[in-house]
Amino acid sequence: MDEKTTIKPYVIGLDLGGTNSVFGIVDSRGDIKATTAIKTQGFDKVEDYVNACVEALEVIIEQVGGIDNIKAMGIGAPNGNYYNGTIEFAPNLSWGHNGVVPLAQLFQDRLGVPVALTNDANAAAIGEMIYGVARGMKNFIVITLGTGVGSGIVINGQLVYGCDGFAGELGHVIMERENGRSCGCGRKGCLEAYCSATGVARSAREFLLKSDQPSLLREMNPDDITSLDVSIAAGKGDELAKEVFEFTGEMLGAACADFAAFSSPEAFIFFGGLVKAGDLIMDPIKRSYEEKVLPIFKGKAKFLISGLDGASAAVLGASAIGWEI
Amino acid sequence: MDEKTTIKPYVIGLDLGGTNSVFGIVDSRGDIKATTAIKTQGFDKVEDYVNACVEALEVIIEQVGGIDNIKAMGIGAPNGNYYNGTIEFAPNLSWGHNGVVPLAQLFQDRLGVPVALTNDANAAAIGEMIYGVARGMKNFIVITLGTGVGSGIVINGQLVYGCDGFAGELGHVIMERENGRSCGCGRKGCLEAYCSATGVARSAREFLLKSDQPSLLREMNPDDITSLDVSIAAGKGDELAKEVFEFTGEMLGAACADFAAFSSPEAFIFFGGLVKAGDLIMDPIKRSYEEKVLPIFKGKAKFLISGLDGASAAVLGASAIGWEI
Repeated sequence: MDEKTTIKPYVIGLDLGGTNSVFGIVDSRGDIKATTAIKTQGFDKVEDYVNACVEALEVIIEQVGGIDNIKAMGIGAPNGNYYNGTIEFAPNLSWGHNGVVPLAQLFQDRLGVPVALTNDANAAAIGEMIYGVARGMKNFIVITLGTGVGSGIVINGQLVYGCDGFAGELGHVIMERENGRSCGCGRKGCLEAYCSATGVARSAREFLLKSDQPSLLREMNPDDITSLDVSIAAGKGDELAKEVFEFTGEMLGAACADFAAFSSPEAFIFFGGLVKAGDLIMDPIKRSYEEKVLPIFKGKAKFLISGLDGASAAVLGASAIGWEI
Repeated sequence: MDEKTTIKPYVIGLDLGGTNSVFGIVDSRGDIKATTAIKTQGFDKVEDYVNACVEALEVIIEQVGGIDNIKAMGIGAPNGNYYNGTIEFAPNLSWGHNGVVPLAQLFQDRLGVPVALTNDANAAAIGEMIYGVARGMKNFIVITLGTGVGSGIVINGQLVYGCDGFAGELGHVIMERENGRSCGCGRKGCLEAYCSATGVARSAREFLLKSDQPSLLREMNPDDITSLDVSIAAGKGDELAKEVFEFTGEMLGAACADFAAFSSPEAFIFFGGLVKAGDLIMDPIKRSYEEKVLPIFKGKAKFLISGLDGASAAVLGASAIGWEI
């Protein structure tokens, strides 16, 4: 290796979302030194998207003393494949929905630093290991509760990518084998269909329909109910809304009990929008887990909320991939 | 390290079962050079058991040229904990049922070679990696179908032990969340309650009760039916017996689909008594898996039968742990 021995103090993180692409330049303690963003959509070709990114990046790279201070770049992206640095058939990206886009290579060619890419849940897991609550842990699972349910699994200190780069799809284990809810993946009964933000809103609508129990949520058009509304109502003591979180947490706890049988992690770390509900969701998760898990695992796993700052968590996670290169 | 540079060509394997303790001295290609066995039970103290083992071992160690030719010893044992070399609260061992027995250390002190210990399914997984069908694979799952359902999981070329040494209990993921069968672990609906040898016999009894379908199995006392009887009847074309295997394989395929969402293995490798049913069990496993797995994983995983010779598979697996030290 011909690598220079001068220490390069920063990495670039790119949180590539369906709407915005958010960049941060981050030091080894997880302090964001500079940040910028562009819209993800509106580009027909990936090259145009990368051009717009690099143009925005040049400004903040200059702010930290130039590209010589940058060790690497990490990208957290939907359908990201770590092994070959590609985004594969990402349905929500105008320039990436119908093929395999070698995004890491394109950035690497333009910036002249190593670039690695993975999906956002894996990025969150590495972020927790490097800057967050999983520092020092070798075996843990990050579960992201957002629009979908994602996961990043760390075993023996390494992220689990599997034989094809797509391991860690714990949102798609089957929780209801009969009459399960339809899931976006085309199957039925997936964890994601119940425990994502949209799953929680759907549970609320189902609970409202199947009883006459009074609820603040009855004042809304059912179709407009979001997980945030359920969370606010539960926070005000609304019984039906609390039952929705109880139901959601109970299923997540049952799922984690199965995950323990797989990898016996030291901790389950929850990340994403739904986690803002705090104890409303965490208490039933823990209770259900301890009740359902195989006796040998009882009382061993910690249940933690992400230690990454909410607003910049995704960028921090993406940047963390850069330190792993 | 002061280790001698002379090559030590053999390892000792001990397959510690509830009835017999079988020893083999094995070379790096998996050829068993010498073998012996003693009864596992009949000892009040573990020291007496180890004394009897060493006495039997001395004879075969001499046959391969003495202890200087032995690199290490590997033990596959129920409730074996790799991290500290102990057997913990093994219900079926007269000298090990009520405490934590430091078995690896006891053998190490007597033999003067390094000794490692794990449970039998983990031993089988390392055996497949070193001598069997998983040579060259970095990500695979061994599922043992015997009296129970066990598993050994390899990710990134390493066995998964988890934070406490007890990971890989895939026989105890929950397959039926409502009205599931009672499992030996004290819970309900575990994979093991359906897909172990005893689970298959139980399915046969259930199938016989719930229909009037003619079957060769009706000639037996229902309580005497074993998985082997079901296998023999199915082999003769018995429709009810074939349905039992169909049911069993379908559930195993569904379970493997969930396991793929976890670690996306290159292969699932089946090991143990039930595997002797061959295509009767393997065909429905594959069919059910491909039907149920998340689209991104379809067609990727291989479904293999253990490559270790049946009679000596457990000893080979145990010995393989020795090469990993």
